[in-house]
Amino acid sequence: MTELNIGLFGLGTVGQGIYRVLERARNAHASISRICVRSLAKKRDIDIPANMLTDDPDDIFNDSAINLIVEVVDNAEASWRIVRRALEQGIPVVSGNKAMIARHLPELIALQRRTGAALLYDASSCGSIPVIRNLEEYYDNDLLLEVKGILNGSSNYILSRVFDHGEDYGYALKRAQELGFAEADPSFDIKGFDSLFKLVIITVHALGVYVDPGRVFTYGISAISDFDIKYAREKGVKIKLVAQVVKLDDDRFTLFVMPEFVSPGKYIYSVDDEYNGVVIRGECYDRQFMFGKGAGGLPTASSILSDVTARLHNYRYEYKKMSYEGRPAYTTDVSLRIYLRHKNPEVPYGLKFDKILERYISDHTCYTVGDLSLAELMLHPELLSDPDVFICNIPRFFESDDDGSLSNIN
Amino acid sequence: MTELNIGLFGLGTVGQGIYRVLERARNAHASISRICVRSLAKKRDIDIPANMLTDDPDDIFNDSAINLIVEVVDNAEASWRIVRRALEQGIPVVSGNKAMIARHLPELIALQRRTGAALLYDASSCGSIPVIRNLEEYYDNDLLLEVKGILNGSSNYILSRVFDHGEDYGYALKRAQELGFAEADPSFDIKGFDSLFKLVIITVHALGVYVDPGRVFTYGISAISDFDIKYAREKGVKIKLVAQVVKLDDDRFTLFVMPEFVSPGKYIYSVDDEYNGVVIRGECYDRQFMFGKGAGGLPTASSILSDVTARLHNYRYEYKKMSYEGRPAYTTDVSLRIYLRHKNPEVPYGLKFDKILERYISDHTCYTVGDLSLAELMLHPELLSDPDVFICNIPRFFESDDDGSLSNIN
Repeated sequence: MTELNIGLFGLGTVGQGIYRVLERARNAHASISRICVRSLAKKRDIDIPANMLTDDPDDIFNDSAINLIVEVVDNAEASWRIVRRALEQGIPVVSGNKAMIARHLPELIALQRRTGAALLYDASSCGSIPVIRNLEEYYDNDLLLEVKGILNGSSNYILSRVFDHGEDYGYALKRAQELGFAEADPSFDIKGFDSLFKLVIITVHALGVYVDPGRVFTYGISAISDFDIKYAREKGVKIKLVAQVVKLDDDRFTLFVMPEFVSPGKYIYSVDDEYNGVVIRGECYDRQFMFGKGAGGLPTASSILSDVTARLHNYRYEYKKMSYEGRPAYTTDVSLRIYLRHKNPEVPYGLKFDKILERYISDHTCYTVGDLSLAELMLHPELLSDPDVFICNIPRFFESDDDGSLSNIN
Repeated sequence: MTELNIGLFGLGTVGQGIYRVLERARNAHASISRICVRSLAKKRDIDIPANMLTDDPDDIFNDSAINLIVEVVDNAEASWRIVRRALEQGIPVVSGNKAMIARHLPELIALQRRTGAALLYDASSCGSIPVIRNLEEYYDNDLLLEVKGILNGSSNYILSRVFDHGEDYGYALKRAQELGFAEADPSFDIKGFDSLFKLVIITVHALGVYVDPGRVFTYGISAISDFDIKYAREKGVKIKLVAQVVKLDDDRFTLFVMPEFVSPGKYIYSVDDEYNGVVIRGECYDRQFMFGKGAGGLPTASSILSDVTARLHNYRYEYKKMSYEGRPAYTTDVSLRIYLRHKNPEVPYGLKFDKILERYISDHTCYTVGDLSLAELMLHPELLSDPDVFICNIPRFFESDDDGSLSNIN
């Protein structure tokens, strides 16, 4: 078995986590030879021999002893330059950058096929939960119907604090950042983009179809108000930021990221704080629930380690499902039932409901509950950026029978 | 990609499930060529062309077109004969027979290495939950500390009915059998052997160490009484049949199957009915929880299908951890705290406690709560078969911090 000599890019929370994890994994047959950082001057609370550090990528790319590159820089452009160059040079790469991967996946797949070098990125989705690997290898068949979950640790942490602990939204957000759950740019988390990128990657490995992130409805929690929280409490449900990809029938599927009213009858109702939870539903096996730490340096690092050791055995994603016959096609022509909270009595921006079921009007707040198509919702981007509007999905069309037996849901 | 022509042994609940699942999995590149059954005469509620059926194993073993054998007979001896012959003939096999695998694993590993033919058996543990594959591939490192879970669907179903629905034990057992959760011989489930065999297999893939099932403390739920249930209810806990393998330190681990008082603070507290739930704990990633259907024909069949499709890509277990340096050694020299319910005031069979914490004596029932070593417990087999005695583990030494954030546990 060949030893892995790793060239590491990035020494933030995750990078330092990888360094620590590799020190502890005695049988990993992998060690870090060189670490490329943006600034050598930066003070770090980890003791690393100075000669391991460099700020010149060539010190890694031109080191012929390095046979694996691990890339955990948070800048997506830098990540893309590193990964592309590595693959072009035929060096396998492990990356955790979901934004870069979600945006460039078709090119990355083509690059892997052309150069034969492999790219692994299980850490990019759900931190320590092995979602990608299981979708690729274990749920490697036609039976998959739905992947739905809480994929973003920091927005979930914020909602938990607000919901279960009555904390103020801004305070909870600040705490999430202090605890290192939140991305450098919090809007990445709370506006749903982090969940979106993970969902796009998951969809490729779940259904074998790539959907450009720009074509996916993505709406976060930044506009949530005390009124919305009170409304949900009164209904006995929680608001969670949910990402889902759902097969509507043999030929069509849809996917979106959107806050959702989650009833106690659902597994994800119980997923709180910085944790992630994913429900995989299929024919025959019904539902499986995977739960674990989705954020933080060490959990993500342990997931990176799993990709690293997989490389010891030359593991690569085959993207098998992309060659399946009868792959379903992406559609936004699906009817949703939503809660729309707005300021003035008339529905903002002339949003067209197919059917309105409830209207609430008061001098300071109004809301409308009704059915409309996802496509119609996507015709009104101005709606999504209006701070006086909040939209929440009321699960209905995607609800099949109860999530099964976790006793808290009975 | 070569098509898989499957020779199937066994057409019970799982065998019929496999037949149905393969009909639905359009892209599986696998089809059943021949099915060997014990009795051709037997009436079956599934429509299968008569010429596919045979009662002569040679019709499969001598068919050169068959390149994968799937074996789901419930008799362990028959299973062993089939799997051994297949491997000796160099034909890959997928098996779901946990008893056979747990008993013969060392020979099966040697056979695979000698003949180069692969044996896959993910379906043998936890039905549809991909525990083995994840332990082998994803948790392929030193960081694993513990695998603990509810591995037997039917005993869990029975306990759920008794505990949460106040049903009579015998009635619940009968229902479990009617629903097809219980093995043909229910003692296999309720005496803990099904959990034991799964635990032995899990331990090989978790820590790289094989422990003969005969050396593992195994105690089931058949002696549980209303008194025990009332006792647990008063303490606000549930009794679950728990299998666990735990690393005590870098050099030692222990494993056993035993009823346990499970507090609401634990993930497995919420695992009810025929479901299975497994907690994988490690350094860095803390705990992960996998939950799904552990029993029933279709869930098990879908797991078999995952092994079948894995064979399309020549996947095999590498048993990597067996070659790790510094593998921990099995010990029973570990102190447990137990609840021992017995008939007469004196502790039965002179069982030696290191420390007794509580004694309860009444004219009809007594119990003792105290600490003793697992080794001492294993010195008294007569204790385990005494219908007037019930033993339940009080988790203590293996408890680390709270299982983390599933809201139902707060």
